[in-house]
Amino acid sequence: MLKITVWNENVHDRKDKKVMEIYPKGMHGAISDFLSELPDTEVKIATLDMPEHGLTQEVVDNTDVMLWWGHTAHGQVADEIVQRVYDACIRGMGLIFLHSGHDSKIFKKLMGTTGSLSWREMGENERLWVVSPGHPIAKGLGECIDLEHEETYGEFFDIPEPDELVFISWFKGGDVFRSGCCFKRGYGRIFYFRPGHETLPTYHHPDVQTVLRNAALWAAPSTKVDNVSCRHVMPREEIDVNCDDD
Amino acid sequence: MLKITVWNENVHDRKDKKVMEIYPKGMHGAISDFLSELPDTEVKIATLDMPEHGLTQEVVDNTDVMLWWGHTAHGQVADEIVQRVYDACIRGMGLIFLHSGHDSKIFKKLMGTTGSLSWREMGENERLWVVSPGHPIAKGLGECIDLEHEETYGEFFDIPEPDELVFISWFKGGDVFRSGCCFKRGYGRIFYFRPGHETLPTYHHPDVQTVLRNAALWAAPSTKVDNVSCRHVMPREEIDVNCDDD
Amino acid sequence: MLKITVWNENVHDRKDKKVMEIYPKGMHGAISDFLSELPDTEVKIATLDMPEHGLTQEVVDNTDVMLWWGHTAHGQVADEIVQRVYDACIRGMGLIFLHSGHDSKIFKKLMGTTGSLSWREMGENERLWVVSPGHPIAKGLGECIDLEHEETYGEFFDIPEPDELVFISWFKGGDVFRSGCCFKRGYGRIFYFRPGHETLPTYHHPDVQTVLRNAALWAAPSTKVDNVSCRHVMPREEIDVNCDDD
Amino acid sequence: MLKITVWNENVHDRKDKKVMEIYPKGMHGAISDFLSELPDTEVKIATLDMPEHGLTQEVVDNTDVMLWWGHTAHGQVADEIVQRVYDACIRGMGLIFLHSGHDSKIFKKLMGTTGSLSWREMGENERLWVVSPGHPIAKGLGECIDLEHEETYGEFFDIPEPDELVFISWFKGGDVFRSGCCFKRGYGRIFYFRPGHETLPTYHHPDVQTVLRNAALWAAPSTKVDNVSCRHVMPREEIDVNCDDD
Repeated sequence: MLKITVWNENVHDRKDKKVMEIYPKGMHGAISDFLSELPDTEVKIATLDMPEHGLTQEVVDNTDVMLWWGHTAHGQVADEIVQRVYDACIRGMGLIFLHSGHDSKIFKKLMGTTGSLSWREMGENERLWVVSPGHPIAKGLGECIDLEHEETYGEFFDIPEPDELVFISWFKGGDVFRSGCCFKRGYGRIFYFRPGHETLPTYHHPDVQTVLRNAALWAAPSTKVDNVSCRHVMPREEIDVNCDDD
Repeated sequence: MLKITVWNENVHDRKDKKVMEIYPKGMHGAISDFLSELPDTEVKIATLDMPEHGLTQEVVDNTDVMLWWGHTAHGQVADEIVQRVYDACIRGMGLIFLHSGHDSKIFKKLMGTTGSLSWREMGENERLWVVSPGHPIAKGLGECIDLEHEETYGEFFDIPEPDELVFISWFKGGDVFRSGCCFKRGYGRIFYFRPGHETLPTYHHPDVQTVLRNAALWAAPSTKVDNVSCRHVMPREEIDVNCDDD
Repeated sequence: MLKITVWNENVHDRKDKKVMEIYPKGMHGAISDFLSELPDTEVKIATLDMPEHGLTQEVVDNTDVMLWWGHTAHGQVADEIVQRVYDACIRGMGLIFLHSGHDSKIFKKLMGTTGSLSWREMGENERLWVVSPGHPIAKGLGECIDLEHEETYGEFFDIPEPDELVFISWFKGGDVFRSGCCFKRGYGRIFYFRPGHETLPTYHHPDVQTVLRNAALWAAPSTKVDNVSCRHVMPREEIDVNCDDD
Repeated sequence: MLKITVWNENVHDRKDKKVMEIYPKGMHGAISDFLSELPDTEVKIATLDMPEHGLTQEVVDNTDVMLWWGHTAHGQVADEIVQRVYDACIRGMGLIFLHSGHDSKIFKKLMGTTGSLSWREMGENERLWVVSPGHPIAKGLGECIDLEHEETYGEFFDIPEPDELVFISWFKGGDVFRSGCCFKRGYGRIFYFRPGHETLPTYHHPDVQTVLRNAALWAAPSTKVDNVSCRHVMPREEIDVNCDDD
């Protein structure tokens, strides 16, 4: 059983008419629906306005893969919850950051960089080219994903060199962007996926849904542990302690 | 002119007789001495007990490469100073973490991981094997560096997959460790170098000195910028804004 | 259905008494047996002395993951077969190189390096430390694999920086080695796994069997294609060809 | 003294009027001229029609960094010379592949992949975005290099995941490409740089010249060795050989 939690700040989704029309159940609702098509999977949702943002210790402990959509309310996410999600990732939980999640506290804490980028909102054409077509996250896709309208992000994107780069976006207005980036932290796997602007039907696009289903499988933990911390250990070989180091 | 700042918490160096005998000017003093052999280089020191830990904005702004030795007093480093050093690294300053620096606030903030590892203090033999002999940091070394006595660190070392791995340590008691690790964050280059236990004369070893001189040159910024943050940008191509995204 | 082909040069296995005692069905037989424990899997064997070394185009086309054990007869593998296996890997087939496979024609062709290393045969203790414990290939293992006796390999191992490093070996005699290395080439995934000397019962060790079962699953193709070659393509956007480049 | 050899197949340069107009001394002549601006540097040229393609053992042994421009005559480069250049790279010589060099024998031999890509020749606008602005190769550049007209290359580009990715190209017709890629092989550093179509004045562009001067410095060997091959070694520790492995 793969246990997925879709976290959404759920602010635009309740205030902005256009967003409400496109995503009547919120973006988290739309994302949950297509992730639920995965076999043997349980998908839950969590939002900013819930107690502990819906991310109690129990919820986090029972999550294999978390998706994170945030934008306008990054600053309202409590540091304690950020630490809890961070700890879970280090201990093995997969994390998929969506779109403006690049600027969330938890993304920056896991990357060790600012996550900054250039941007504009002009609804221009985006093409996500597959640069690692044998990667599990690219399974079932053609050579690129064509999104008629999206918000634009451009380089320099301040992230560590990704462990694996799966997508590079082309934007009509002249920009490129590393749009599908894999990282590992502790026992956990992390995927950043660029598109997903709230006023556009990106999460209804079949290729986007394929990517996120693939990413959930890829990010699912191989191994989870209770704790990652320093350990005092004894030698495995007999050694002469011939120096008075104490 | 390469401007280097050697930061040391300078606690053991003033309290522990053995450390005082081995490093009469403190470890920062010993390290400064051999870094000063680099041509066209200015080396300054900074310690925890100085105002702002010796790392005022002016000092940090005038540093190309910083070395960081900390161990027993990680928790006493002010968060404001950690943020200042972090910002400088993102903007291009090189950072070289020494030994127990793996557990410092600033290392963990830049890595996005816990930096945890296994350890014991039995003064056993360490050999650092060069696994990237063409790397600038390995210039002038043989196939391994042999340290008669050192503290032991063992895997799993919780760091992101290094961009480049230069050294792997062998310890007599049965452990291995990724001892020379390169990372990039923002415009800055980071090198972690494992050995350097305070009660042992590691920084007097000629190969260790060679590594740190090489590392200082390698970590020196190619480009420094004033600021790394999100930028709103206009398209470079004329585009029809045919969607009412606003 | 996962289709695995275990290739062995099968020379020591038929001539050397000690090898015959340890592996009465050959090393390929032993390896096939424990890979067959994977669900929904078909394991076939192929050896040097078969027509086309057992690797006809049909066999290769029907292989998802190939394991490769070679040592004394690397030079007898026909270049045509090497090219066929190479092509299959580029088109998506997984490849797992065992032990002295580091010196095979096909390994060097895929790496772009010499695959050279240092070695001795003294049956000393090897410990393979897990340095990426969240990796699928490390699933089910403890913090290290302890092999009482093995041949020794040492650094510098001339390979490209691995995409992911899973194991580092410690040898009693003072060496370390990057023993579990992941690479991607074309659509294919490649894993190099160090231990497996013919005169030692390494392939009977339960942890070694776990690693190779995990590696077979990890290397299984996400996507296979018929051909990877240059393609002449038309623009996706209308462009003014305002330069007389022809 | 940095010793550079610029190799050009020099076929278009002698036959095609447009190329002769743009590059009266051949592309190798133009490239040599701006590389000669580097301090303490000696630049030589070598072409296909010279004896041993101008790459005698003596020339290769006296080269620190080689640049490689080939396109229409890849098949005419003798395998013996390919092996010689390969060996030199493994032993520490830097190699910079230009444009259609992606399809040369020596590039494919060093990559372990097909080097294939998609392409069209329509002289469209290319922008090379800097995705690693702190990298030495990007020193002195703005956020992108704007080339009014270039041949187009598109993904999927069949190369191993680059050790460092410095440039990503945007093309007006809808494509992206990993245009500045760093690799290591043996002791040698390799840089692939995409633009440089023979009928266009790309090598007269100041930013392109900056990149190639930077790349020559970056690729210069830290360490050169006479030979990289397997070595039989003795243990550094006393070990009981308690198994009859012989």
